[in-house]
Amino acid sequence: MPEGGGKVVKESLLAREIAEQADVVGALWREERQAVRAIGREVRARDPRLGVVVARGTSDHAATYGKYLLEGVARLPVGMAAPSLFTLYQTPPRLDGALVVALSQSGASPDVVEVVSAARRQGAITVAVVNDTASPLADAAEHVVFCHAGAERSVAATKSYTAQLLGVAMLVDAIAPEAGLADGLARAEEWVHTAQSRGAEITAMLADRAQEDTACLVAGRGFQYATALELALKLKEMAQVLAEGYSAADLRHGPLALAGPSLPVLMVGGDGSTERDLEALAGQARRLGSLTAALTDREALAKAADHAVPLPPVHEILDPVVAAVAGQRLAYAWARARGVHPGDPPGLSKVTRTW
Amino acid sequence: MPEGGGKVVKESLLAREIAEQADVVGALWREERQAVRAIGREVRARDPRLGVVVARGTSDHAATYGKYLLEGVARLPVGMAAPSLFTLYQTPPRLDGALVVALSQSGASPDVVEVVSAARRQGAITVAVVNDTASPLADAAEHVVFCHAGAERSVAATKSYTAQLLGVAMLVDAIAPEAGLADGLARAEEWVHTAQSRGAEITAMLADRAQEDTACLVAGRGFQYATALELALKLKEMAQVLAEGYSAADLRHGPLALAGPSLPVLMVGGDGSTERDLEALAGQARRLGSLTAALTDREALAKAADHAVPLPPVHEILDPVVAAVAGQRLAYAWARARGVHPGDPPGLSKVTRTW
Repeated sequence: MPEGGGKVVKESLLAREIAEQADVVGALWREERQAVRAIGREVRARDPRLGVVVARGTSDHAATYGKYLLEGVARLPVGMAAPSLFTLYQTPPRLDGALVVALSQSGASPDVVEVVSAARRQGAITVAVVNDTASPLADAAEHVVFCHAGAERSVAATKSYTAQLLGVAMLVDAIAPEAGLADGLARAEEWVHTAQSRGAEITAMLADRAQEDTACLVAGRGFQYATALELALKLKEMAQVLAEGYSAADLRHGPLALAGPSLPVLMVGGDGSTERDLEALAGQARRLGSLTAALTDREALAKAADHAVPLPPVHEILDPVVAAVAGQRLAYAWARARGVHPGDPPGLSKVTRTW
Repeated sequence: MPEGGGKVVKESLLAREIAEQADVVGALWREERQAVRAIGREVRARDPRLGVVVARGTSDHAATYGKYLLEGVARLPVGMAAPSLFTLYQTPPRLDGALVVALSQSGASPDVVEVVSAARRQGAITVAVVNDTASPLADAAEHVVFCHAGAERSVAATKSYTAQLLGVAMLVDAIAPEAGLADGLARAEEWVHTAQSRGAEITAMLADRAQEDTACLVAGRGFQYATALELALKLKEMAQVLAEGYSAADLRHGPLALAGPSLPVLMVGGDGSTERDLEALAGQARRLGSLTAALTDREALAKAADHAVPLPPVHEILDPVVAAVAGQRLAYAWARARGVHPGDPPGLSKVTRTW
């Protein structure tokens, strides 16, 4: 990585990091599996009554996925930490008996570190899912899941996000092995490899309109709610598109007022439980005049939308892993179609420290 | 309310509902106080280990405020429910020993009702904060806090939101009377009355640019994070402005990449704990070229931004109540400045039923 490299160098670096993800996912599964199983045994032995997830930015969307997994698979009620109560107000909630999972690429943001430190002092079980084992966050937590993503230098996080998703899914599998996630986790590398190959479909989808579109709504539901949030952030960071992510249900409770010819609606996902909800949304959005597109493995949803990028059908709980990768490719391609440099978002730096 | 009334009739109805809020807040405090105290005693006796809040749309922002209050004042860790795990996947988390607080104007959305019903079956303490005591949600919950907001007919919720904020603050005061919120709650009517009088400052703030601006970022921090989310939704519903609400910290972890001359940044709040964070954000956003504006009672923040609407200084935990009212007036005025009818958002209806 040349220091001070230009926009084009940063762009090809980002493309490389996106392309590395199948390898990252494979390495994480192979290298970290035993360590995560040991953490799972410890968590089961201490039998937490609630979970807390804590993160910022992209990692916060992996934390959202973690909340759905811990609640829907391990049946543990989970809150997303409000760091300001720990750092600015200094009135944190009681966290004894909690499982606290922190996610961060760099492990360097002081607010995330402080939540973990405070929780550990209170007697919570603390786990950091990080890409730097020498970071303050790795030091602060009792247990560490190492992401094996390699150095990530692009401002827009891509492979570290996918690794966090897999890392948190491995942790939940270790806490609740009876849910049977292991077979899917073992196949994640192959599925991500397939998702990385959807370039032609994405280019076709964008050919129509992407040059003029500078805003959109992104909707997911259930496990793919996290993907909607993350795809919206990637579209902001890479393509300078003002995208906002929503649960399909929340979209109907207000924001749908903005749907119309100048605001496309992107949908991600659909599984056996949520596909009809997204199909209904596609119909609503089209009636309001929005162009609709879907990243999905569901045929009926693909037909209900104006455009679709097909995803490989995988274990539904791992849908977000493959959808994230396709979403990154979409954001990258949208940037290129608009003539924006996806590797160089203005006003941001790689490691953001907030309190 | 004339059936099928035109856009102008709906606009004046909305203006009336916004103007009624001091009365609503006063009535709620006087009429509901004893009943809420009794609920607080019951909650203290059953000593919940965690809280869950559940809501959709505008009410979800009151739920966010409730999470911060329950965590920061009553020190109870709180999660926001993921309704799809109850309704679509049918794999809800274990909620025995939890306090579950549901918020809804109509009390009619099936997903919110189902979360409360499932939690009650599991043995949770359930409380509904509703504006219709004959609603399915009021039936489903063990305890009811009635909002006393009167009939709300406008699609954009205003007075019911402010009533929910006060209702949930009264509930937290009843659970944790030692925190000393009661004096502030007793003065809320007077403070809301003052906030309603900020019309001239809002008009001045909008005079510059509001006609051409069709998007903005809205930032809050701590207790005012909820206000940022809600103001962004009001701007969408009333003014057709593509506004997205953020914690000031999360804004720095990505979305700030969009700041610049075509994207204003609105800030709400600032209290003794968060004002410096918002001042720093104002500086960052201005350096990136964004026009900045603040709704605040903090002089230093008002000076750090290009424009400011002064709010009455109140007990910091009740800042969101007065800021919400000023934010509604801002959204209404922005709509008028753009020639959009604030009382008639396309594609929405008053009661939204989601699953």
